[in-house]
Amino acid sequence: MQEGNALPLVILAEQFAKLPGIGMKSAQRLAYHVMEMDEADAKEFIAAFEGARKKVRTCRVCLNFTDREICPICSSPKRDKRTICVVESPKDVTAFERTKEYSGVYHVLHGLISPMNGVMPDMIRIKELLERINKEEVDEVIMATNPTVEGEATAMYIAKLLKPFDVKVTRLAFGLPIGGMLEYADEVTLFKALENRSEI
Amino acid sequence: MQEGNALPLVILAEQFAKLPGIGMKSAQRLAYHVMEMDEADAKEFIAAFEGARKKVRTCRVCLNFTDREICPICSSPKRDKRTICVVESPKDVTAFERTKEYSGVYHVLHGLISPMNGVMPDMIRIKELLERINKEEVDEVIMATNPTVEGEATAMYIAKLLKPFDVKVTRLAFGLPIGGMLEYADEVTLFKALENRSEI
Repeated sequence: MQEGNALPLVILAEQFAKLPGIGMKSAQRLAYHVMEMDEADAKEFIAAFEGARKKVRTCRVCLNFTDREICPICSSPKRDKRTICVVESPKDVTAFERTKEYSGVYHVLHGLISPMNGVMPDMIRIKELLERINKEEVDEVIMATNPTVEGEATAMYIAKLLKPFDVKVTRLAFGLPIGGMLEYADEVTLFKALENRSEI
Repeated sequence: MQEGNALPLVILAEQFAKLPGIGMKSAQRLAYHVMEMDEADAKEFIAAFEGARKKVRTCRVCLNFTDREICPICSSPKRDKRTICVVESPKDVTAFERTKEYSGVYHVLHGLISPMNGVMPDMIRIKELLERINKEEVDEVIMATNPTVEGEATAMYIAKLLKPFDVKVTRLAFGLPIGGMLEYADEVTLFKALENRSEI
């Protein structure tokens, strides 16, 4: 920001710009908005920010974010504990829960293996997954990492580690997204869709 | 957000979603990001938020946001105090300053007249503008509100109030945006560009 802007406002805008998906222009708009919030709204925002950081921790079982020791999914008697869906982050749990179709439980890795970015296998929560499979009776582990280089590598790495265990390891299906147009699909997706075709 | 999300995280996401231009999905991503910030970054964010609200006030002269009694623009000897550019909000001051071409001063209305939204003329800072023009020697007032219904109405309302004063009142030029494509210009813009054409 230029001359004419109060320094504390510039500092606040810079803080907003550090958040993911917020550019400098949006950050500036947000900073101005903060100036125009009434006192109660500002206090509510700060309380929510600090409250989340203070109260939220990771579930002792699946490592998803929760405000209890064991999250509602892991402690629900309705969920099938013999099926574990392995995801990169808590966001992915929310995505699966939105489908309302998955009744198993989760394991959140909190990252993907990525030697290029200095993330080694021991830096994500793989050890905790192995301990779970060792301790609990698990039938199936669904590798539900993203279809990216890192997601694929992490899925393969974990699948290999799970070989000695008596557990089925599966991977999400890849193909055309529902509602998508064939002509806009990239080559790899189209190839996957063709390769994984099923009889009708 | 659905089952499986910690309540404090949901509350934080809702707070982010209240900010302008942030939808529920981005808000959720931001809330997760906050969980992953280290303690120092989180403290810095809170300090910037509270610092801006505590230290920033409006300039006694132009009502732009500043951390001093009189903002750097109004107190600069290089700025021409006889030309006042009237804008809706502090954002607009930044936009003009970015051009590096304007050497006058500003007056921030902090809103536009909008009876539809319950904003009457006495609810924005018009009175302060009239006081300035009464007290100081002003040659020109540039009405630089947005080319919207409210912006236009506010410009016309203020222009009428300024009639009794010995001051030139001007309005920003409207026409084709530089770099824009003629074929994509809306009819009103194109009409304005035609109407305000100049000899070359």
